[in-house]
Amino acid sequence: MSTTTNAIAAPAPGAPLAPTTIERRDLRADDVLIDIAYAGICHSDIHQAKEDWGQAIFPMVPGHEIAGVVAAVGSGVTKYRVGDRVGVGCMVDSCGECEYCLAGTEQFCVKGNVQTYNGVGFDGENTYGGYSNQIVVKDAFVCRIPEGIDLDVAAPLLCAGITTYSPLNHWGAGPGKKVAVIGFGGLGHMGVKIAAAMGAEVTVLSQSLKKQEDGLKLGATDYYATSDEATFDVLRGKFDVILNTVSAKLPVDAYLSLLKVGGAMVNVGAPGEPLSYNAFSLLGGNKVLAGSMIGGIAETQEMLDFCAKHGIGAEIETIPADKVNEAYERVENSDVRYRFVIDASTIGA
Amino acid sequence: MSTTTNAIAAPAPGAPLAPTTIERRDLRADDVLIDIAYAGICHSDIHQAKEDWGQAIFPMVPGHEIAGVVAAVGSGVTKYRVGDRVGVGCMVDSCGECEYCLAGTEQFCVKGNVQTYNGVGFDGENTYGGYSNQIVVKDAFVCRIPEGIDLDVAAPLLCAGITTYSPLNHWGAGPGKKVAVIGFGGLGHMGVKIAAAMGAEVTVLSQSLKKQEDGLKLGATDYYATSDEATFDVLRGKFDVILNTVSAKLPVDAYLSLLKVGGAMVNVGAPGEPLSYNAFSLLGGNKVLAGSMIGGIAETQEMLDFCAKHGIGAEIETIPADKVNEAYERVENSDVRYRFVIDASTIGA
Repeated sequence: MSTTTNAIAAPAPGAPLAPTTIERRDLRADDVLIDIAYAGICHSDIHQAKEDWGQAIFPMVPGHEIAGVVAAVGSGVTKYRVGDRVGVGCMVDSCGECEYCLAGTEQFCVKGNVQTYNGVGFDGENTYGGYSNQIVVKDAFVCRIPEGIDLDVAAPLLCAGITTYSPLNHWGAGPGKKVAVIGFGGLGHMGVKIAAAMGAEVTVLSQSLKKQEDGLKLGATDYYATSDEATFDVLRGKFDVILNTVSAKLPVDAYLSLLKVGGAMVNVGAPGEPLSYNAFSLLGGNKVLAGSMIGGIAETQEMLDFCAKHGIGAEIETIPADKVNEAYERVENSDVRYRFVIDASTIGA
Repeated sequence: MSTTTNAIAAPAPGAPLAPTTIERRDLRADDVLIDIAYAGICHSDIHQAKEDWGQAIFPMVPGHEIAGVVAAVGSGVTKYRVGDRVGVGCMVDSCGECEYCLAGTEQFCVKGNVQTYNGVGFDGENTYGGYSNQIVVKDAFVCRIPEGIDLDVAAPLLCAGITTYSPLNHWGAGPGKKVAVIGFGGLGHMGVKIAAAMGAEVTVLSQSLKKQEDGLKLGATDYYATSDEATFDVLRGKFDVILNTVSAKLPVDAYLSLLKVGGAMVNVGAPGEPLSYNAFSLLGGNKVLAGSMIGGIAETQEMLDFCAKHGIGAEIETIPADKVNEAYERVENSDVRYRFVIDASTIGA
């Protein structure tokens, strides 16, 4: 048994997205049915829809930045009620028993977490994402969106928010700390807002100064162009934490030179090609090069609560369903300030 | 004014070391005169004596693993008395005022620390190291060698000991943690002893199984050959901390794959050529690649106290002064178990 819902899907790798219908499972005891209000467009949606990252499942309904309202709950659900404002991010299930699930880092589940779309559930069924009217998700993978964040600006928090919050939190961004954010796009602008709200002094390192005004408005105290060689002299040894949101190949040693002794550069984007570094760039200052991948469910809830408390949402451009393919092109051209969000009411309308 | 003391020096880059005499300054108020008992031979002595690391100062008296007894103190010294057992490591001075000195990480002094040899003091005088009968060192850079560690096995702790203790301490080696040590030489064997004493479960990753028996005797529970590809399958995802003591270029991604989620690989050796890694090796498990360089003076004292408490000294081969050149060759051929220590009483005898 199942319910039919409207969606936007890529029928084949690289093909334009088009309206379709998909089936959502009937509610199990621990399931939540969500009326989706908004779904963010993450660059990774585009990579997967184009099958850039290896074999994918088609038709594909992308979308792992989902905000909506609970429409129904399974018989065993006590955490959510009809009408609750909720969000779903990159994962919809994990084993729940391994050391990483028990530690609240379901993204590293040893059995493999179930991706919100382009994944296969433990029941063997393909998963379909948020570009849709409704979705059914296990309650443990649903987060509460606090009052005080509108659902449209909340949607991108479920991926871009947690992806930047988790490393900033782990590596100690806060009062008295200097944080640099490399890249000022969907991830970068969230990193700036969150680091500033944590109390850190934030510098944006962007290729050009084109978005400088926005950067300063969103919480940065400084904004430098990395295309200017002088930037690397001026900022030498300045930062406690560098959050790298860029997926391009960077001169790692040059960025490590901007860290203080004991500082950490954390990568949340991964270029396809290998990166190169000189071991002395790490030794000569007890420095750290780290990676961070989204965040667990409990930390995602913590991030949503933090954002609500600090009045933080994404900077968005809301689009109707029929503009999705155009939006994809604009994301690929870095022509968005700073996240597209699909108004789900226009899907199938 | 000054005092003449016997020493062994490299007269020119790459030239054999030979007996000579050098001057030690008269005691300032905060100086300690040390009768050197033993001086360890660190691989970095050889690199510097050969001018492998850029322009060096000749004649050069190497030696930054120094153990001895206080022979006299300056008028203002209260911390040490004649007869005290003391050690000196890689540094003999720093500015004492910058944020890193104040934080106890004098190795990162913004003014630059003064190296024990092949350095220039803030008074403009060249520094000469421990291959000598006596040395004069500012009290703040002298550590106490607790009763319970013999001076000969204590000497290498001043570099090899702190170089491995500091990262193991920082990255949380201890009970319940699995630590791998790459390389089983002068640094590696100290890393194994110290990590085991901290309560961690220790695995040695060495090119071959030649020294396996020693590894298990010194505290490792496992010993694997990295020349065997199967090692990387068997140990996948196993370690909390990997201490890399090897200066050769390693396949970084392969070693990162041996870390658990959130684990750290710390490099204390630096190859001359750049290393390459895939950003996904860090992201796919919130992993860390870090560097660590010796340790501050307070932490060096902490390490000596720790080693005394746990009965840890280096495994050494004691040599007379006239065997230094032969010992250098053997170090270069990795033919030492595990540290040469010069008996300073044979210098100038």
